[in-house]
Amino acid sequence: MKLVSFSHQGRSAAGLWLGEQLLDLERTAEAAGEPPEVVAMLASMLSIICGGEPALAAVRRLEQQSGRSPQALQPLADCSLLAPIPVPVRNVFCVGRNYLDHVHEGYAKAGREVKLPEAPQFFTKATHALNSPYGDVRLDSRLTRLFDYEVELAIVIGRAGRDIARAQAMQHVFGYTIANDFTARDLQRRHEQWFKGKSLDTSCPLGPCIVDRDSIGNLGDLELWLTVNGEQRQRAQVKQMIFDLPTIIESLSAGLTLEPGDVIATGTPAGVGFAMNPARALVDGDLVVAGIDGIGELRNRIVAVG
Amino acid sequence: MKLVSFSHQGRSAAGLWLGEQLLDLERTAEAAGEPPEVVAMLASMLSIICGGEPALAAVRRLEQQSGRSPQALQPLADCSLLAPIPVPVRNVFCVGRNYLDHVHEGYAKAGREVKLPEAPQFFTKATHALNSPYGDVRLDSRLTRLFDYEVELAIVIGRAGRDIARAQAMQHVFGYTIANDFTARDLQRRHEQWFKGKSLDTSCPLGPCIVDRDSIGNLGDLELWLTVNGEQRQRAQVKQMIFDLPTIIESLSAGLTLEPGDVIATGTPAGVGFAMNPARALVDGDLVVAGIDGIGELRNRIVAVG
Repeated sequence: MKLVSFSHQGRSAAGLWLGEQLLDLERTAEAAGEPPEVVAMLASMLSIICGGEPALAAVRRLEQQSGRSPQALQPLADCSLLAPIPVPVRNVFCVGRNYLDHVHEGYAKAGREVKLPEAPQFFTKATHALNSPYGDVRLDSRLTRLFDYEVELAIVIGRAGRDIARAQAMQHVFGYTIANDFTARDLQRRHEQWFKGKSLDTSCPLGPCIVDRDSIGNLGDLELWLTVNGEQRQRAQVKQMIFDLPTIIESLSAGLTLEPGDVIATGTPAGVGFAMNPARALVDGDLVVAGIDGIGELRNRIVAVG
Repeated sequence: MKLVSFSHQGRSAAGLWLGEQLLDLERTAEAAGEPPEVVAMLASMLSIICGGEPALAAVRRLEQQSGRSPQALQPLADCSLLAPIPVPVRNVFCVGRNYLDHVHEGYAKAGREVKLPEAPQFFTKATHALNSPYGDVRLDSRLTRLFDYEVELAIVIGRAGRDIARAQAMQHVFGYTIANDFTARDLQRRHEQWFKGKSLDTSCPLGPCIVDRDSIGNLGDLELWLTVNGEQRQRAQVKQMIFDLPTIIESLSAGLTLEPGDVIATGTPAGVGFAMNPARALVDGDLVVAGIDGIGELRNRIVAVG
């Protein structure tokens, strides 16, 4: 199932993506005479995530009945998709240097010997970095001259936990989405810690939907890819990660409580602009499309500001 | 004025710290017949911060009348102080390597040539790191063998802004508090990016109060200090910072929107345990006291878990 957050005529809601239409889950549940606690559970993506299996069961039930309540189906074209977690509870967790070929291109560009990470390299993106799947991305040339993209598979946490063991890790996953971890390379370098170069407003488009864990299929085989103005820059399979998802969850949650709705971007493969010779920075008007098979696409226009 | 968040008989509220007593601001405002919008503005620290100057004026008014409503004064001993921002809107912003002598001790310990930061080194601490001013701090020896302290002046942002210029920066400050940036040095090193070693649950005691901007006096002269079991480990003045507060706010807010209630820990001076020879790690039962003159003290016991 593809779950979305969307706005329509000034109202924000959670929906189920069905082809060219969105099923408004709260309204459908009301119309179907579901009990008030189920209606409330379907009111937002976070309430669905916190609702767990009963919430997903309700969504499945409504999906099967959707033919009977066509008034609850909104044409996709009339809606605006939001970041699937529109009001994040805190910063987005991210993993750096998690694809071998990306590690190599980074060190090669810096003219340094390759050093594989000993443990996942976690950092965060600030909450205002979150952007909708088709939103414009700000490019302020007073701040950065080397703005870059990074397509990533993102995990959405469903169940809270600390000290989560590898073997139980996947039970804490609600689903999957796509993040584009836009990065100001010059700020990333100048501030040494990556946070600042990773946290500019609008620099984390997320979506277009969350695919729940049971619907995703074989994770390792998923392809992630990115194009700039139609030219392919990145393509890899999830199985090429250095640290797999259970390892990431185990490592991140060690002594650190994860919460429902937490988003973990799991690293990008090779092909980023700064590692090219010469480096290629994004410029005003560029269209960056980041996709993962089975989830969908982020489509973001780079827009000069300032 | 010293503003606090506290709990008393199961209720959480914002208060004014008056000697050995706390003035419950919401209850006092009700009793004083303040209009409902003022009562609501005094219900929590975040609502006071968002209320700005009118909220502070109401607090001053109630302080002057406090002698007339003794029933609104709670003995401090009956209350639990909470982190002044008990429900953070997102991760705590932090600055690394911001005191010259701390930069020197760090590079000396690593046996590397000193390199002064070119720009503030920003990172974050996850929201569950936040701890109350007198709360126990978890020490899990399965995760870290080199757990360390860092006393820091923390800024609380009062007014939202992006691209804040140095000259306007201090107008965005609501007030000041103390943070102890407890750090697992081995995790900090192993994960390369500092986030993981800085983000263990309970590793960011904050408080004991927020002193509003106009009450703080001469910032540069403030002394910050830290003791472990009564032994002094750190002492410095705020004026010894490499990047001063306007520079930090200007740099952090460049392209990144700050929000009311955001907390920015501004770096620690020399004297941390890992830089000693031999390194001294915190152990079960240690009492760490971190103070800043004019604000107060954090008192935290290290407690082994796991």
